[in-house]
Amino acid sequence: MRERILQAAEDLLRRHGPAKTKVVDVARHLGMSHANVYRHFNSKADIQDLVAARWLRGIAEPLYSFVAQDGPSEVRLRGWVEGLIAVKLDKLARDPELFATYNSLAEASRNVITEHVAHLREQIASIIADGVKRGELKVNDISRAARAIHEGTSRFQHPYFVTRGDARPDGIDAVMDLLIAGLKAGVI
Amino acid sequence: MRERILQAAEDLLRRHGPAKTKVVDVARHLGMSHANVYRHFNSKADIQDLVAARWLRGIAEPLYSFVAQDGPSEVRLRGWVEGLIAVKLDKLARDPELFATYNSLAEASRNVITEHVAHLREQIASIIADGVKRGELKVNDISRAARAIHEGTSRFQHPYFVTRGDARPDGIDAVMDLLIAGLKAGVI
Repeated sequence: MRERILQAAEDLLRRHGPAKTKVVDVARHLGMSHANVYRHFNSKADIQDLVAARWLRGIAEPLYSFVAQDGPSEVRLRGWVEGLIAVKLDKLARDPELFATYNSLAEASRNVITEHVAHLREQIASIIADGVKRGELKVNDISRAARAIHEGTSRFQHPYFVTRGDARPDGIDAVMDLLIAGLKAGVI
Repeated sequence: MRERILQAAEDLLRRHGPAKTKVVDVARHLGMSHANVYRHFNSKADIQDLVAARWLRGIAEPLYSFVAQDGPSEVRLRGWVEGLIAVKLDKLARDPELFATYNSLAEASRNVITEHVAHLREQIASIIADGVKRGELKVNDISRAARAIHEGTSRFQHPYFVTRGDARPDGIDAVMDLLIAGLKAGVI
């Protein structure tokens, strides 16, 4: 039932936007009372957070292929960053308004963003840890390094730049060249 | 006279914002006809661009001290990036509304931004070139490396993040550690 309510909320948000999607509309859409919806969720904000979190998982999940992959960590790290950009550009191209809606839902909740960022950094950390095991990288503080890779590539993948069509894909190789050389140098 | 007109435009923009600052107001402020203002400038946009460019020079100029300085290039590069953040945070703290006004003026003109970015990257390139001469850095394509340092640190100094109070100063050291190790590795 939680799943059905979230799916209905997602459909209505997609069609009408967050301002015009009330809990009572979600309930009506499912032919139930809004008291019934409130048995499953605390508030409209609660539902919006879960919808946003689900959308962000849809961004992170395809990137697991780079974590699970065999092969040189350098290739996988570059693939991961380019994959993150590609997933966002793809979602933006399919439906720019929906992209903006989900972005603003996510921005409305610090927790949702924090969890998403932690999720992405865990993926980066996995690849780095693997690179260390394979003897390709020399990193002492893996979570610090993962954060640095994430923050050092913001110019290319942060929603602010992606949404503006200003993610400068021709700059990413040079930044990754420097960052990866850093991961090999044992400075972190 | 050009200088006096720009100064008057700056004063009025500061007080009333761009929407409410018309060329005729600038002229009245100086006790002259607006035809006279148009003898010196082509349009209101022209004046706004010059005011924005002047403001951006005020951000770049203090950073010359890191270019002119003697000493290890690594220290000067770190100083330069931290200096860029500090100058912006200082301007933001003094007058957040004015900061937003200037930002939107600058954003309105691709040329003004492009020139400013080129200006900043020349400063970075100077420090890197010096580091190569001193035998501290190993860089083949200095302008590519300068761009990478600028874009790799966007998360900490881009006006979007600075304005939101979300420039994450505690992350910059790790990113600079990796980037500088890259500048020493001869990968670019």
